[in-house]
Amino acid sequence: MKYNSKTIMTGKSLTAGIGALALSLVVGIAPASAGGKSVTWDDLLNDHKTNDDILSYGAGLKAQRYSTLDQINTSNVGKMKPKWSFSFGDEKQRGQEAQALVHDGVIYMTASYSRMFAIDAKTGKKLWQYSARLPKDIRPCCDVVNRGAAIYGDLVYMGLLDASVVALNKNTGKVVWKKKFGDHAAGYTMTGAPFIIKDQKTGKIMLIHGSSGDEFGVIGRLYARDPNTGEELWMRPFVEGHMGTVAGKKSTPTGDPKAPSWPPGNYKDTGKKESWSHGGGAPWQTATFDIETNTIVIGTGNPAPWNTWKRTKDGDDPRNWESLYTSGQAYVDPSTGEMVGFFQHTPNDAWDFSGNNEIVLFEYKDPKTGKLRKAGAHADRNGFLFVTDREKLTKRDDKINKPTSLIAAHPFVPGITWAKGFDLKTGKPIEVEGQRPPKPEAGKKKGKMIQVTPNFLGGKNWNPMSYNPETGLFYIGANHWSEDYWTENITYKKGAAYLGQGFRIKRQFDTHVGALTAIEPLSGKIVWTAKEKLPLWSGTLTTKGGLVFTGTSDGYVKAFDAKNGKELWKFQTGSGVVSIPVTWEMDGKQYIGMGSGYGGAVPLWGGDIAELTKPVSQGGSFWVFEIPKEVASK
Amino acid sequence: MKYNSKTIMTGKSLTAGIGALALSLVVGIAPASAGGKSVTWDDLLNDHKTNDDILSYGAGLKAQRYSTLDQINTSNVGKMKPKWSFSFGDEKQRGQEAQALVHDGVIYMTASYSRMFAIDAKTGKKLWQYSARLPKDIRPCCDVVNRGAAIYGDLVYMGLLDASVVALNKNTGKVVWKKKFGDHAAGYTMTGAPFIIKDQKTGKIMLIHGSSGDEFGVIGRLYARDPNTGEELWMRPFVEGHMGTVAGKKSTPTGDPKAPSWPPGNYKDTGKKESWSHGGGAPWQTATFDIETNTIVIGTGNPAPWNTWKRTKDGDDPRNWESLYTSGQAYVDPSTGEMVGFFQHTPNDAWDFSGNNEIVLFEYKDPKTGKLRKAGAHADRNGFLFVTDREKLTKRDDKINKPTSLIAAHPFVPGITWAKGFDLKTGKPIEVEGQRPPKPEAGKKKGKMIQVTPNFLGGKNWNPMSYNPETGLFYIGANHWSEDYWTENITYKKGAAYLGQGFRIKRQFDTHVGALTAIEPLSGKIVWTAKEKLPLWSGTLTTKGGLVFTGTSDGYVKAFDAKNGKELWKFQTGSGVVSIPVTWEMDGKQYIGMGSGYGGAVPLWGGDIAELTKPVSQGGSFWVFEIPKEVASK
Repeated sequence: MKYNSKTIMTGKSLTAGIGALALSLVVGIAPASAGGKSVTWDDLLNDHKTNDDILSYGAGLKAQRYSTLDQINTSNVGKMKPKWSFSFGDEKQRGQEAQALVHDGVIYMTASYSRMFAIDAKTGKKLWQYSARLPKDIRPCCDVVNRGAAIYGDLVYMGLLDASVVALNKNTGKVVWKKKFGDHAAGYTMTGAPFIIKDQKTGKIMLIHGSSGDEFGVIGRLYARDPNTGEELWMRPFVEGHMGTVAGKKSTPTGDPKAPSWPPGNYKDTGKKESWSHGGGAPWQTATFDIETNTIVIGTGNPAPWNTWKRTKDGDDPRNWESLYTSGQAYVDPSTGEMVGFFQHTPNDAWDFSGNNEIVLFEYKDPKTGKLRKAGAHADRNGFLFVTDREKLTKRDDKINKPTSLIAAHPFVPGITWAKGFDLKTGKPIEVEGQRPPKPEAGKKKGKMIQVTPNFLGGKNWNPMSYNPETGLFYIGANHWSEDYWTENITYKKGAAYLGQGFRIKRQFDTHVGALTAIEPLSGKIVWTAKEKLPLWSGTLTTKGGLVFTGTSDGYVKAFDAKNGKELWKFQTGSGVVSIPVTWEMDGKQYIGMGSGYGGAVPLWGGDIAELTKPVSQGGSFWVFEIPKEVASK
Repeated sequence: MKYNSKTIMTGKSLTAGIGALALSLVVGIAPASAGGKSVTWDDLLNDHKTNDDILSYGAGLKAQRYSTLDQINTSNVGKMKPKWSFSFGDEKQRGQEAQALVHDGVIYMTASYSRMFAIDAKTGKKLWQYSARLPKDIRPCCDVVNRGAAIYGDLVYMGLLDASVVALNKNTGKVVWKKKFGDHAAGYTMTGAPFIIKDQKTGKIMLIHGSSGDEFGVIGRLYARDPNTGEELWMRPFVEGHMGTVAGKKSTPTGDPKAPSWPPGNYKDTGKKESWSHGGGAPWQTATFDIETNTIVIGTGNPAPWNTWKRTKDGDDPRNWESLYTSGQAYVDPSTGEMVGFFQHTPNDAWDFSGNNEIVLFEYKDPKTGKLRKAGAHADRNGFLFVTDREKLTKRDDKINKPTSLIAAHPFVPGITWAKGFDLKTGKPIEVEGQRPPKPEAGKKKGKMIQVTPNFLGGKNWNPMSYNPETGLFYIGANHWSEDYWTENITYKKGAAYLGQGFRIKRQFDTHVGALTAIEPLSGKIVWTAKEKLPLWSGTLTTKGGLVFTGTSDGYVKAFDAKNGKELWKFQTGSGVVSIPVTWEMDGKQYIGMGSGYGGAVPLWGGDIAELTKPVSQGGSFWVFEIPKEVASK
């Protein structure tokens, strides 16, 4: 029950007052101008080097989430305290998963229910607020979250739950353009942060974003837009054989137009089974950009439905069908919108492992040749940390699917049941027999229940990892958990869940679920693990100060020693923390910023673990931490 | 629009997960026991002396809101930082006006929408939550606020918006009893904190609480209950001539059964005008207790309707009609439920000044006789600080209405237009001609508009003041504002607003609205004023550390030097602060606690000033502040 304003008595000014109050909750207000410089491509290009701003999701084109700031470090982080807090308000809470941007003294933070706030970084004062008017029939699978904004020129950009992208004037919050790209009633939505790149061939700045909706049987698509007008430059679908577009007109199909990785059938004269027409593959997280080869790198979502048998030729072994280009990492040419490379983490995914998680670009010295190698790192829901060969994957040749671009695949969670590992020669998983949930026997609605680890929420979910070039370690907000899993019959119906799979998320260990994990990418050595009772659903940030920052579902923002995982500091924010920390310098001083507000997939899908999180209060706030001047010198 | 769980796909555990999530939002969860000692009468009696707990609204029977703690003081308060924050969650925000109780390491905090939280004072962890299931047709005039709990034995008590009182087990949050006392559809509700007293004659512990609803034409009532069972001991209505009850049976009428202070008329065979049957007078704030004379002291609400002509004999001067016992301070015998004394702040109130604000009990040395005098202090919405003679008002004689018990009445806000002052001989205001909004001329719906200062939200509203016996000053969260005011015709209709008055709240000064005001009660000297751009809607707390704490509508918790009003510290909590600060000691260390969350009457009724508060985000959190050990020794 919400406060019913109709029950309040009237009076001239009262009516106006309520009207004004209601209005302030749904539309942008601009009591003050955010002001500030325009953001240039050079600013974005140097985002990972500059300390006074954070201009992109991932804090740089490679999304390493590493800051060279070291004013806050292992020796003084214990003294960190809140500087201010900001409430998102509006009687809207649920999951706050966003990463903030910081530019010219203004924090741009997105929030649940498709809202954005411009906040004065010094005082916490609201400069403006944008709140999308959302239709009632939106279909976000996993809470009404938003993961962050992009910024370029004088505009800030965010995706909306009704499958649109909006550009706002960064100084006023006013809508400059808004583009709807999908049918939200069919399941299209957008929760990920858009990303700005520059096509190195044409010099065009592009806003790159994907779609969400795999659980509803829509086709995942990647878009490039003119950031000034929102005009669609191209669209690339991630189900093999589906047609892409350039400037709204048919361009080329994705890969082989015959889509040999999808089984034959008789669905609506497609020559394919139903699943091909509703095959998922949504790139719902955020791209990175390999600037040297001019290539967009993005994870692709799970195939739809989840039920692997629906994507397998009747009577055949599912391992003979790959459901390209789902559950993998895709490499796309920005000039043409063509896919140039692909590596699949989970072929013909039977577990909703998906492949969305970020691909962090990094370099390492090859121990054999001594040469610097360009790689991508990706911690998958399937429990493996993949190191892939960026040179191979970005190479323009006649092959798109490049399983042999795999350099390493190391488990970063214990007790993985579905595969023993990966064959580096073939780039394919060494699957464990019986781990694809068997299809229902004839006449039955459900298949036999099996236990799978990790569960479909994954060894790591969307919450982005960070890479510290000084320690050479990746910091993963991992979870140790399992599930009961079984197949169910399913037929596509617009707007309805398209899974064909039943599940119950379960504990793997009595002691913990979350496990902040520091892993060396090439050896796969887990250098340290910091365990958490509740699931970890926050991204990580690592700094030259020797620190790793993250948040916990029981409300803490925490700092760890990047070398040994020792917990050095924590602060209780009052609601579960499931967002992404950032750090910046302002007037010569380092700050840490992070959203607080519990929600996301776990309380909705998490079975036994959702029960575990029941005492966690919802919330909606942004926090800035500092080392107060009183203790800075101590 | 709220997240529609129906749009989420199903799956065995998912359905359960959502159900469980929804459930956790509306019912008490007890993941841990709050534990702790039972609260005795002695504990309550000594509440103002003991530093490790806060067991009553007002922090003692006299509600002085003074703490003898001085660990945090004028020299170190600048170093204060948040220790933790707690989110009330539930996608419910709006005004958070409550004062917390603290007992045995547990904070009991009530929140908007009739919720209570038990929070571990050390960590900020939720121990349990109670959320009332409220009907949809509740009629809170001034936001869905709650102002705090009472505690006794193993129970904690709070009022609910559906006009009931609930007792919860303090260790589990489970409902022990719940009593509905009024028809919420008619306008009865409860937002004030209940109060525990001990009848000094019978030794009976009693839970004392009032009703709200004057804006809907219900009769204000004060109740005494058995705290263990909720059984109603007596009820006292505050409209002259209305019948009280003892144990649910008719007892005595309030004052003269003929109600000579209300005009004659023909309404429903009452021999009175309509207004007498719907006359208001609700004691919606919290009592204090004069233990030496065994007397409950409580403010009574405005008469209904607001329109003074409806409470005046046709053709007569409104000043000849008093509308007893509204807009004054009432003194009630707990053994009998009889009123024994009354002082009216605004006779036949024409301005909705009401008289609810707390009566702080204090003593002072009479400058003439040198004797200690027992007084009550009350800062009224009408702009005057009243000092009343507690000995006269508590005296059992045959007079109830005792206007000559007035010791002093000093303006605490500038530019009061409705009265030049009070005549200490008669105890009556020296009214300014033309300040009672004239009634509509024949054939017109509205009367002539006049300007009145202060406006009906008052020189001070509900937000309780504090008294520091060391400085001898009262600290009032005052507001300097004005209004346009006019009468309108009105007829009573159940559940509808019963005002007969139109208004628009306006600025008085360009510079500020709020004015934290330190005033010497006998001389009326305003020792200092700290101005705030937005209205002040927070209570104050004063300490032996020489400090005054309060919160501001633009989000700060602030500390001032009690002697000179210098602002020594502030922290931005992210939403407007309209609650009441408390302080306590735990493990030898002093803490400050306060709720944050903007709402209350101003954004709903505040006209021009509501506009001013539009950029303020709603919120719902509780904050604990400390001087971190890193800086304590500096």
